[in-house]
Amino acid sequence: MIAIIKQGVTDAQIENLTHWLESQNLSVHLSKGEYTTIMGLVGDTSAVDIELLENLEIVEKVKRISEPFKSANRKFHPNDTIVDVSGVKIGGGNFAVIAGPCSVESEEQIIEVAKRVKESGGTLLRGGAFKPRTSPYDFQGLQADGLELLKIAKQETGMPIVTEIMNANHLSLFEDVDLIQVGARNMQNFELLKELGKTNKPILLKRGLANTMKEWLMSAEYIMAGGNENIILCERGIRTFETYTRNTLDLSAVPMLKELSHLPVVVDPSHACGVSKLVKPMAMSAVACGADGLMIEVHNNPKKALCDGAQSLTPDEFDDVMRRVTKIMEVVKE
Amino acid sequence: MIAIIKQGVTDAQIENLTHWLESQNLSVHLSKGEYTTIMGLVGDTSAVDIELLENLEIVEKVKRISEPFKSANRKFHPNDTIVDVSGVKIGGGNFAVIAGPCSVESEEQIIEVAKRVKESGGTLLRGGAFKPRTSPYDFQGLQADGLELLKIAKQETGMPIVTEIMNANHLSLFEDVDLIQVGARNMQNFELLKELGKTNKPILLKRGLANTMKEWLMSAEYIMAGGNENIILCERGIRTFETYTRNTLDLSAVPMLKELSHLPVVVDPSHACGVSKLVKPMAMSAVACGADGLMIEVHNNPKKALCDGAQSLTPDEFDDVMRRVTKIMEVVKE
Amino acid sequence: MIAIIKQGVTDAQIENLTHWLESQNLSVHLSKGEYTTIMGLVGDTSAVDIELLENLEIVEKVKRISEPFKSANRKFHPNDTIVDVSGVKIGGGNFAVIAGPCSVESEEQIIEVAKRVKESGGTLLRGGAFKPRTSPYDFQGLQADGLELLKIAKQETGMPIVTEIMNANHLSLFEDVDLIQVGARNMQNFELLKELGKTNKPILLKRGLANTMKEWLMSAEYIMAGGNENIILCERGIRTFETYTRNTLDLSAVPMLKELSHLPVVVDPSHACGVSKLVKPMAMSAVACGADGLMIEVHNNPKKALCDGAQSLTPDEFDDVMRRVTKIMEVVKE
Amino acid sequence: MIAIIKQGVTDAQIENLTHWLESQNLSVHLSKGEYTTIMGLVGDTSAVDIELLENLEIVEKVKRISEPFKSANRKFHPNDTIVDVSGVKIGGGNFAVIAGPCSVESEEQIIEVAKRVKESGGTLLRGGAFKPRTSPYDFQGLQADGLELLKIAKQETGMPIVTEIMNANHLSLFEDVDLIQVGARNMQNFELLKELGKTNKPILLKRGLANTMKEWLMSAEYIMAGGNENIILCERGIRTFETYTRNTLDLSAVPMLKELSHLPVVVDPSHACGVSKLVKPMAMSAVACGADGLMIEVHNNPKKALCDGAQSLTPDEFDDVMRRVTKIMEVVKE
Repeated sequence: MIAIIKQGVTDAQIENLTHWLESQNLSVHLSKGEYTTIMGLVGDTSAVDIELLENLEIVEKVKRISEPFKSANRKFHPNDTIVDVSGVKIGGGNFAVIAGPCSVESEEQIIEVAKRVKESGGTLLRGGAFKPRTSPYDFQGLQADGLELLKIAKQETGMPIVTEIMNANHLSLFEDVDLIQVGARNMQNFELLKELGKTNKPILLKRGLANTMKEWLMSAEYIMAGGNENIILCERGIRTFETYTRNTLDLSAVPMLKELSHLPVVVDPSHACGVSKLVKPMAMSAVACGADGLMIEVHNNPKKALCDGAQSLTPDEFDDVMRRVTKIMEVVKE
Repeated sequence: MIAIIKQGVTDAQIENLTHWLESQNLSVHLSKGEYTTIMGLVGDTSAVDIELLENLEIVEKVKRISEPFKSANRKFHPNDTIVDVSGVKIGGGNFAVIAGPCSVESEEQIIEVAKRVKESGGTLLRGGAFKPRTSPYDFQGLQADGLELLKIAKQETGMPIVTEIMNANHLSLFEDVDLIQVGARNMQNFELLKELGKTNKPILLKRGLANTMKEWLMSAEYIMAGGNENIILCERGIRTFETYTRNTLDLSAVPMLKELSHLPVVVDPSHACGVSKLVKPMAMSAVACGADGLMIEVHNNPKKALCDGAQSLTPDEFDDVMRRVTKIMEVVKE
Repeated sequence: MIAIIKQGVTDAQIENLTHWLESQNLSVHLSKGEYTTIMGLVGDTSAVDIELLENLEIVEKVKRISEPFKSANRKFHPNDTIVDVSGVKIGGGNFAVIAGPCSVESEEQIIEVAKRVKESGGTLLRGGAFKPRTSPYDFQGLQADGLELLKIAKQETGMPIVTEIMNANHLSLFEDVDLIQVGARNMQNFELLKELGKTNKPILLKRGLANTMKEWLMSAEYIMAGGNENIILCERGIRTFETYTRNTLDLSAVPMLKELSHLPVVVDPSHACGVSKLVKPMAMSAVACGADGLMIEVHNNPKKALCDGAQSLTPDEFDDVMRRVTKIMEVVKE
Repeated sequence: MIAIIKQGVTDAQIENLTHWLESQNLSVHLSKGEYTTIMGLVGDTSAVDIELLENLEIVEKVKRISEPFKSANRKFHPNDTIVDVSGVKIGGGNFAVIAGPCSVESEEQIIEVAKRVKESGGTLLRGGAFKPRTSPYDFQGLQADGLELLKIAKQETGMPIVTEIMNANHLSLFEDVDLIQVGARNMQNFELLKELGKTNKPILLKRGLANTMKEWLMSAEYIMAGGNENIILCERGIRTFETYTRNTLDLSAVPMLKELSHLPVVVDPSHACGVSKLVKPMAMSAVACGADGLMIEVHNNPKKALCDGAQSLTPDEFDDVMRRVTKIMEVVKE
């Protein structure tokens, strides 16, 4: 960590600051120049409150050199984390495919999709029950009823289930959910993260709409700080100025995160692009750069026009994606 | 609302869609071109789920023409809303200044700042008790104890108090809080917004980090849909590529929101810029373009180096800002 | 194209506008609603000046429905364009790899890199001679001398050469350059684009720092409008809030552009990421989602510390990338 | 400047780098930690090529501490620069208002607007002759003919004229132009900037679409490095995710730039917002935060519907803006 000292600061002031920092178990190295004086802070700086430091009268700016995340940091945990979702492993060479409809609509729908997804090689069943919507007037999901339907599909197919939580008070409803998803808009809902940190449930943490990898890993850190280390990161696109795609899928985040952290990384091309034609190529790309898994929207009802999702694949299209993706994976593993 | 129909769609398909839309009380106007067929939907489209429509097999794209927000829309509510915060009015020509420290630190601190702020003309006392921090290792505020100290300062000075809520389960603790703040990171925490909609507390809704005015107004709509119309919007800067300022204060949002909505708009230059030197000019600017109020960080302890906030003003600096701002307001009101 | 008419406009005003639009060979369809009146414009709207229309007194907003690009539009040119760069074909199933150093430094350097790149299967030699730099104090490239060295490498190896132009006045120097690159910062240097439109040289048009695909295709359109249709689009990352990577490589642009346009699309993972470790995975990803080629920085001098580029590969690393990429391509072509 | 050294680097390697840096007149301070070694470089680092340094094998990252701009830096030039545009002074307490139509359309139009602008207190006449347009099919301005009309208006009214240059080859046409504008899309057209640096013409340098203040000041530096120090910076809004306004006017850039640099700063609210209703409040805001001038679009033809620009003011509206702005300025100067 580097503190840049303001011009005109007295030696006594610098000494004061030095003592205070040393009392926090940091060692301090000073570089004085004509226009700038730099203070190098060495030690465990992850616990240093950068805003507090920047607020000091004599400090112009503070720059972190080492990462502020610790539990999620590969430097202190060199081996890949493998998350076990009720028997399905993700990470450390274990590839998983989460698939299913955007929203759970009916028992018939979710069971049929689950069966087709499983036949094609999907390993986890997703389905939205609580849906975060920008407008209060839009469909908010089947909620608790949707969770019940997911559980039925789980019994029928044996597939572990994945669904989004929006409120820590709902946790009791999520007891039979195998992997709890935190959506993009809740990535920095720190109160929710803290509550999830107290459980031992695997968590699928989606990247926020306009958040950096550092902020994302700090949100993982919130959960891990509570004792729950079963975290899977999910890249789902970030907001950019582009309008032809809903979001911009940041695939370079995959190898970058693998470098920075030991946590598994999965990619959701459906939600990122918002266009079903892009799901196949982007799923292949995600695997080609090392993703540990995919999250793909699949819907069973191509005939009933009202629900032929613009970003959903039909089960047949999903089957085709799975075949391609498997071949790409072979090249990657060679 | 406009639906652009895919090429190659049959007349029967278009007719089906038309009937379905008409059954939802929309009237449908068709424009057929060589390359594009456009369907104009007229009526109350705020309840139409745009994603559902876009998911239709025959629809290429849907564009909203009218705003999706209704309760917050000036078109349906031409007069300015005036929010009454325990006697302090904001909006409709009533100007309010919310001031106080970033974090409540001690009884002595909060009372002294409150007194100085009041003397200079501040009308509401702010102070952070529950603090949303990017890192779990950073100071999270005095929490419930901080709320108690705020209440003491309120008793001492008679100033209504403003503080941030991060968890709907804390609502009982906020009974004596006069204006409840929803922070930028919770602007799309829809579960929290719904709970606040059930109260009759005035809400200060901050703009999200990278959110548009439309999304912001939709979040206000979530609260209003629950029955609570006491909402004050607070512009606090958005994320851009600029690094010299913490965020980019979007002052053009002030007159734009006044055009779109009847809700009062206040501006927080302290948090937006992150540099105390910019607070005075930006506070003056905010008033010059029509803001209904300001939110300013003031700290009382310039000597104790550790807390001389980079973005906080001293009480004397705040006093100077108030004098300038008052003069600007006279020019604006002329 | 849709024009939304302001409230309170008279029928006579709408009629006037309708006549004027019809005189421009557009047919006009009107949808009147209580709160909004919409005018659908059908016909060749690519020549309609949207700003002029928006400036009309009675018009609230104008929205384009069909794309404003025409020559680059796949709708009017369904087959893939194949660009022939002095015998090396790109597009329509022809894959090309452009490789070489960021800057041409010496005859020895450029020839050695060229030979190694060719051995590994690279098809075009790149090397910067005129370098756009943010600071006037940074190295600006060997300029005309650099071009001479590239030509020597071309003679030695038979590889066509690719280098960046920054000034239309330099065109005479570029006569022996086989593929002229327009860099990100010049994507909207319309005067340069117009001059390149008058030549018959193949052009590699990089995406601007924060530009959308639509703006990018409009820049291609500037060149094509002059008569030069030999354009290759090059995705090189866009500016986002992420800081761990230099830019964010937008790979979803590859399949999206293939949908929108018939022009070939290549990907530059070196410049996008700014970290050599990411070049291999992102090159594989680019091929997996259908790119027509790659642009990769290769440097020959791992021992001489000063030039071991953070984003450059060594020839051996490049060789490894080529082998992986070739296998991915087989899966894609299946 | 700080260089972070990779882990596992030998002392000999560090010593080599130290010697090389010292040979460039930098003094080097080393801070060794368990996980990070930091090298502080002190001296004139503005000439250090940060990319070159980052490319060194043993360097992980380089961070600048002091600003890379020198001629534009207030640290080395504490007094405000006053630019003299043919007798009209801008900066150092001199306020100027540039006004006129977006495009020069006819002799009658430009003369009438010029007269009205002058009557209301405008000091410089603007009018677009060469127009940068995203589409090659849009109106490109009257070009050389437009320049002639501007000169006629200058003779008639005595007002110095301001217009945009897009091509250094046009410089001979600009001999009688008093203030040459560089548009947002050319802010990093370094070849154009270099040519302007060789002239002694005052330059109005607009901020790029998605550029930071640092990049903007580096572009000013390109012109100043050539010897031309007559530069006025013009804030015209940056690209954000907001869509209700065309761009987001970054007014905090005004006081921030005054802190960083001695160059005058003017604000263009017309182009930034794209909505005429916002021009008045944002012009007042710009003055309230310390701008040295304004640039405002004024058009004379409110009756002829086709040219009643959505972002242009009528002369009467402009007159009203001038009166308000003058009063705000009095408050600012007190």
